[in-house]
Amino acid sequence: MNDKTAAVNAPALFTLTTGPVNCYPEVLSALGKPVFYDYDPSFMAYYEKVMKKLAVALGTTDVPIVLQGEPVLGLEAAAYSLVAPQDTVLNLASGVYGAGYGEWLKPRAGVFHEIRVAYNDVVDPVAVDEFLTNHPEVGLVAVCHHDTPSGTINPIREIGEVVRKHGALYVVDSVSAWAGVEVDVEACCIDLLVTGPNKCLGCPPALSILTVSERAWAKMAANPAAPRASILSILDWKDAWRATEGFPFTPSVSEIYGLEAGIDRYLSEGPANVWARHAKTAEAMRAGVKAMGLELWAAREEIASPTCTTIKLPDGVDETELRNLMKVRYGVVISSGRAETFNKLVRVGHMGPTAFPLYTVLALTALGGAMGELLGKPLDIGAAVAAAEAVMRG
Amino acid sequence: MNDKTAAVNAPALFTLTTGPVNCYPEVLSALGKPVFYDYDPSFMAYYEKVMKKLAVALGTTDVPIVLQGEPVLGLEAAAYSLVAPQDTVLNLASGVYGAGYGEWLKPRAGVFHEIRVAYNDVVDPVAVDEFLTNHPEVGLVAVCHHDTPSGTINPIREIGEVVRKHGALYVVDSVSAWAGVEVDVEACCIDLLVTGPNKCLGCPPALSILTVSERAWAKMAANPAAPRASILSILDWKDAWRATEGFPFTPSVSEIYGLEAGIDRYLSEGPANVWARHAKTAEAMRAGVKAMGLELWAAREEIASPTCTTIKLPDGVDETELRNLMKVRYGVVISSGRAETFNKLVRVGHMGPTAFPLYTVLALTALGGAMGELLGKPLDIGAAVAAAEAVMRG
Amino acid sequence: MNDKTAAVNAPALFTLTTGPVNCYPEVLSALGKPVFYDYDPSFMAYYEKVMKKLAVALGTTDVPIVLQGEPVLGLEAAAYSLVAPQDTVLNLASGVYGAGYGEWLKPRAGVFHEIRVAYNDVVDPVAVDEFLTNHPEVGLVAVCHHDTPSGTINPIREIGEVVRKHGALYVVDSVSAWAGVEVDVEACCIDLLVTGPNKCLGCPPALSILTVSERAWAKMAANPAAPRASILSILDWKDAWRATEGFPFTPSVSEIYGLEAGIDRYLSEGPANVWARHAKTAEAMRAGVKAMGLELWAAREEIASPTCTTIKLPDGVDETELRNLMKVRYGVVISSGRAETFNKLVRVGHMGPTAFPLYTVLALTALGGAMGELLGKPLDIGAAVAAAEAVMRG
Amino acid sequence: MNDKTAAVNAPALFTLTTGPVNCYPEVLSALGKPVFYDYDPSFMAYYEKVMKKLAVALGTTDVPIVLQGEPVLGLEAAAYSLVAPQDTVLNLASGVYGAGYGEWLKPRAGVFHEIRVAYNDVVDPVAVDEFLTNHPEVGLVAVCHHDTPSGTINPIREIGEVVRKHGALYVVDSVSAWAGVEVDVEACCIDLLVTGPNKCLGCPPALSILTVSERAWAKMAANPAAPRASILSILDWKDAWRATEGFPFTPSVSEIYGLEAGIDRYLSEGPANVWARHAKTAEAMRAGVKAMGLELWAAREEIASPTCTTIKLPDGVDETELRNLMKVRYGVVISSGRAETFNKLVRVGHMGPTAFPLYTVLALTALGGAMGELLGKPLDIGAAVAAAEAVMRG
Repeated sequence: MNDKTAAVNAPALFTLTTGPVNCYPEVLSALGKPVFYDYDPSFMAYYEKVMKKLAVALGTTDVPIVLQGEPVLGLEAAAYSLVAPQDTVLNLASGVYGAGYGEWLKPRAGVFHEIRVAYNDVVDPVAVDEFLTNHPEVGLVAVCHHDTPSGTINPIREIGEVVRKHGALYVVDSVSAWAGVEVDVEACCIDLLVTGPNKCLGCPPALSILTVSERAWAKMAANPAAPRASILSILDWKDAWRATEGFPFTPSVSEIYGLEAGIDRYLSEGPANVWARHAKTAEAMRAGVKAMGLELWAAREEIASPTCTTIKLPDGVDETELRNLMKVRYGVVISSGRAETFNKLVRVGHMGPTAFPLYTVLALTALGGAMGELLGKPLDIGAAVAAAEAVMRG
Repeated sequence: MNDKTAAVNAPALFTLTTGPVNCYPEVLSALGKPVFYDYDPSFMAYYEKVMKKLAVALGTTDVPIVLQGEPVLGLEAAAYSLVAPQDTVLNLASGVYGAGYGEWLKPRAGVFHEIRVAYNDVVDPVAVDEFLTNHPEVGLVAVCHHDTPSGTINPIREIGEVVRKHGALYVVDSVSAWAGVEVDVEACCIDLLVTGPNKCLGCPPALSILTVSERAWAKMAANPAAPRASILSILDWKDAWRATEGFPFTPSVSEIYGLEAGIDRYLSEGPANVWARHAKTAEAMRAGVKAMGLELWAAREEIASPTCTTIKLPDGVDETELRNLMKVRYGVVISSGRAETFNKLVRVGHMGPTAFPLYTVLALTALGGAMGELLGKPLDIGAAVAAAEAVMRG
Repeated sequence: MNDKTAAVNAPALFTLTTGPVNCYPEVLSALGKPVFYDYDPSFMAYYEKVMKKLAVALGTTDVPIVLQGEPVLGLEAAAYSLVAPQDTVLNLASGVYGAGYGEWLKPRAGVFHEIRVAYNDVVDPVAVDEFLTNHPEVGLVAVCHHDTPSGTINPIREIGEVVRKHGALYVVDSVSAWAGVEVDVEACCIDLLVTGPNKCLGCPPALSILTVSERAWAKMAANPAAPRASILSILDWKDAWRATEGFPFTPSVSEIYGLEAGIDRYLSEGPANVWARHAKTAEAMRAGVKAMGLELWAAREEIASPTCTTIKLPDGVDETELRNLMKVRYGVVISSGRAETFNKLVRVGHMGPTAFPLYTVLALTALGGAMGELLGKPLDIGAAVAAAEAVMRG
Repeated sequence: MNDKTAAVNAPALFTLTTGPVNCYPEVLSALGKPVFYDYDPSFMAYYEKVMKKLAVALGTTDVPIVLQGEPVLGLEAAAYSLVAPQDTVLNLASGVYGAGYGEWLKPRAGVFHEIRVAYNDVVDPVAVDEFLTNHPEVGLVAVCHHDTPSGTINPIREIGEVVRKHGALYVVDSVSAWAGVEVDVEACCIDLLVTGPNKCLGCPPALSILTVSERAWAKMAANPAAPRASILSILDWKDAWRATEGFPFTPSVSEIYGLEAGIDRYLSEGPANVWARHAKTAEAMRAGVKAMGLELWAAREEIASPTCTTIKLPDGVDETELRNLMKVRYGVVISSGRAETFNKLVRVGHMGPTAFPLYTVLALTALGGAMGELLGKPLDIGAAVAAAEAVMRG
């Protein structure tokens, strides 16, 4: 290992990514609690207690489902569980993740439609309304709330109202927005929400969280293609939260401890307070980015995510070089783009423990310093930090 | 909650189950380390390092695969990945888990065969040899090494030699035996071993460990039915251990930390030492059980597992009452039977941190005390402990 | 390092000592919380909160004092703070620790008296009354509640009433009894109680806990010999618990976290429940010891401590050999005697996390097995365990 | 609690103080390891191992002494142990801590001298030489290496050479410099160094570390006033590090675990690398402070500490208001002055985990923002951050 590699491989000082994010200290402490037998009545009672707390955090009356794998498990399981062979589905794609979800829906659906917009833009509810008016046979609509590789936020409430009006089921991937942004499951008319503890809740990656409406449960139960006796089964876990039931297989005990600590933190800080600091952090970051002459990726600032800021890469700047320099010189790790957005943008996460405005000065200094060097002309880091600080003061 | 429920729901003092088991302290400490971004080069290098350590622990030259869900994920993934629609498979079932595996194989195979023996017995390699001689078309043989709900150990090496002779692929579920018993993957001719860190390695439940032979990789690659772009895909993870590759989706970072700590402990204690104390613990337990007049479930003591002791429930003793009384009065939690063995036996685990002979006196006292009360005549706990102690002394 | 040394140096499986004891899991988790600046207002508020919880645990209306070193610091500080050069003091010694306390009192007192009884017996309140009647000039009486090297419990309430009647200050060392046994500071007329979190509260050793009566504060304030601006000063910490005050020097932040977790555990389990299980554990242990023909050290069973059982060493048995064999063969570590009781007895602690009756079967098996071997004739471990189990059942 | 108090009492986001500092993650993990009995041979062997590692970290051939209380214990113990009633001592005071040390020396010495300089300056070795030439009877010279309340660094090597030339013993308080700055005990002719793990080593506060020369041991042994059988005794611990010896009283087991983790981190990172990043962090901080028009406290930049930067408070700025605003608005906690420097300066620590240059942008933003508000005219935070970043780049 040469010196350069060694430096890149040194532990990060600040992980300012879009997930996995580092965890809240109370979460890290909770992970090390003794592991109990899943069929120990005390563990079963504990599991029920945590699921009910999670319902409070989600604002739902029904108890949510936790699947024992990181949120891609929940997303895959939802696609398999809700789509029956004869179904017509509509996928809404405003980015890499939204489009990617189509890859799970398409092979399972009878007819697959997609509304796709530019990857720096968001889906227009009016377009969805028009489409559903023309295609009343659509039984399921799927959307990604925060398309992380783009850093943009779809209007899930407005879309949800449209979907409900047309009677279709509505699946929302809010993995990287929930707990950093208000998500009112009822008001958004969401039938199946997939999220996870490893983003704005400040927990490690290993679990999926799902809310399932009565309609969605009925659809799954009636769907012969819905997984059963499988890690991909949602149905298997329907009643597993009850202390009197067993588990389909062993839950990830330590991760449940971490989840509880994350929920406790979220509820005790107050969800509205948590959302507010996510929003303010992103606002400070965008102010700083613009002040040093860089461009935001999002087509319009109002669609930029409160949980992640995406910055266009100037011509000639290679994202790997940039991120390596940020790490080696400043100790800061941020996220790259993905697929179509790879090497077109970089992303700074504002999620959970890093969603405090002051974190932006770390990101701005490291980003500005490294970018200036790669561009061959210094960026005005001072202006960036001053602009971010003005937001903090406001 | 009444008093009885409260007592049953109090935290266990000693978890002497067949998994999840409590973890080694070094594992619990490791779980709380800071979570790093999975695409941080230092995490990628770290992941490679852990996988290479795991290869040492498994005694394989090839780097193993870790799937990001507890071992049922690995088992399900193996069945889906290795069975193509036209294949003839043979399942060997000496217990609930072995038989259950057939449920995943059967719907995917062209032709499904099974050799089933009594659930207190093990599979005879000679019978396998005969069967394969008569059915040369069998392409895959599956067996459960330690059928936990029975507490018996199949002769996986002898069976493996037979399977290899006939040219079939050989899948072994050694989830609850590996790391407590020697498993020589090469010598046993295993093409795909599934195990996990949450049993004898003393880690939490959340990961699957797989070794995959060249033949098995080739089979999967050629199998159009093998999952791809799915949580059930083994293929997606083939090269993910390399620091230069990415991950198909986010690995369970904290669990990888725990896994490393479990491996370090295992290697520093010395695998042969670890196996020896598992064996001695089980020997002491069996001696104690017999000394107080209870019966072992296993048809013959030589097939009883070194990682779990199964004890027949005497007529009239209800397993839930028994286990609740053991918990309320003594603070000890043990495992029940499963499916066909439910309410026929109870199980005391000897896995990882509890696989030390002295733990048996806890289990014997609690089991003997509670059983005596439910039977209405005291059992000779003293004789049980004395017999167990004689083994420790030996 | 030869094999024998290696075995003795292997980590203990069960630490059944009289302290340090292993900690409750919630305490171990709490120790790793982030360390905050002691002058951070949030830490100052937190410290006050913990001290007030501690008052609840101690059952006092006044807020206790925590000194930042293990309980010998508190004991030494108490002696220095309360004894002025002209004072006459009376030390009550029923064991090594009680007698040892005289070594701190004597050089600081004008006149030093001592009532000393056999080290397997306890102080008689009548004798104290007589002494104080004859020596009305005695201003301070000191006693060790549980003289750990003897495992005996002095009648601190009866003695306290006598001391109060005669008007002297009353200092009680209850380091290894408090939180395992009821200590009613008011009813026992205690002016200065010294205890610690590292015994029955299940925390690590690093702090002293003191309750100080108004009379004792007045005495210290008036005593020119009382340490000030010193680690030995109690006075310096009088108001340090208030969020509005500073600290004389940096408190041991992590240990305060552990202390809080220990208090929370104690209060949520319920002090009376905690005392009851300590008592029952000791009762089971004594029953077992006698059943296998060993002798208790305490002159009478009613003076044996609920937090520790002391067992006479039979002639010819060396305590180091015994304890090493217990560790090497069984993984059990117990405590030796100290000073005059060294090599005359061994001690099994029942403190905090190990004060559950089932722990006695571990101690009895290991003690009986090793002792039998050193004596050259097996002890009846079975009878011992059966006798202990009968107590659990009762 | 009103809103203002609540905000000040919220947990700090960034603790950038001069100690206690937050700990390295590996230290926090280590604190939660199981607590073992101090007389368990494995703990005794472990303790010896840690002390020998500590010798490596200190660069001494002799094994150092750890006292079981935060460094003021070590400082007090050193004063009591080395000063005999007839001795003439010289105290060197360039700040609050150095002067404070005289308070312990003076009452114990026969004759007490002091060289005192302005609290923004350092001691001149030439002045010491002259003094000792004129007072050959001086037997002990004491100095504070880094007088934290001033943030200045005394030339301990040059002074040490002078002291040695004159034959006196040399006591150095390097609590807040060691492990952040090179301290060559031999080359500096130090007879007794006091330091601690809770500053630049990144561990919690609870232990003192001492190196003791042969001459210093001899002096203590011959000194009837040196504490014995006391928490203040250094002599009692002389051989306690040997696995074959006992401890004078119970060591703080969990803190020893933390200490080991801190040493391991220090040695694996490489002491010279650690010192370099402390120096660079301070350099960046000073550049930033000056760039926004604030003044350094230190009379000359070359005497400013690499482990702490002290900034003069402008007229009319109250330090409590300033620090509260920094916390409430930015989440940053820094240290105030002490005694004579209180309300004259504020201090930003660069110690252990926060001694990375990028941390300075947090401190500069929060300090500049809050100070600007209290001054009623914004400071140029941008210029500050840019200047700091230029140092990182250099």
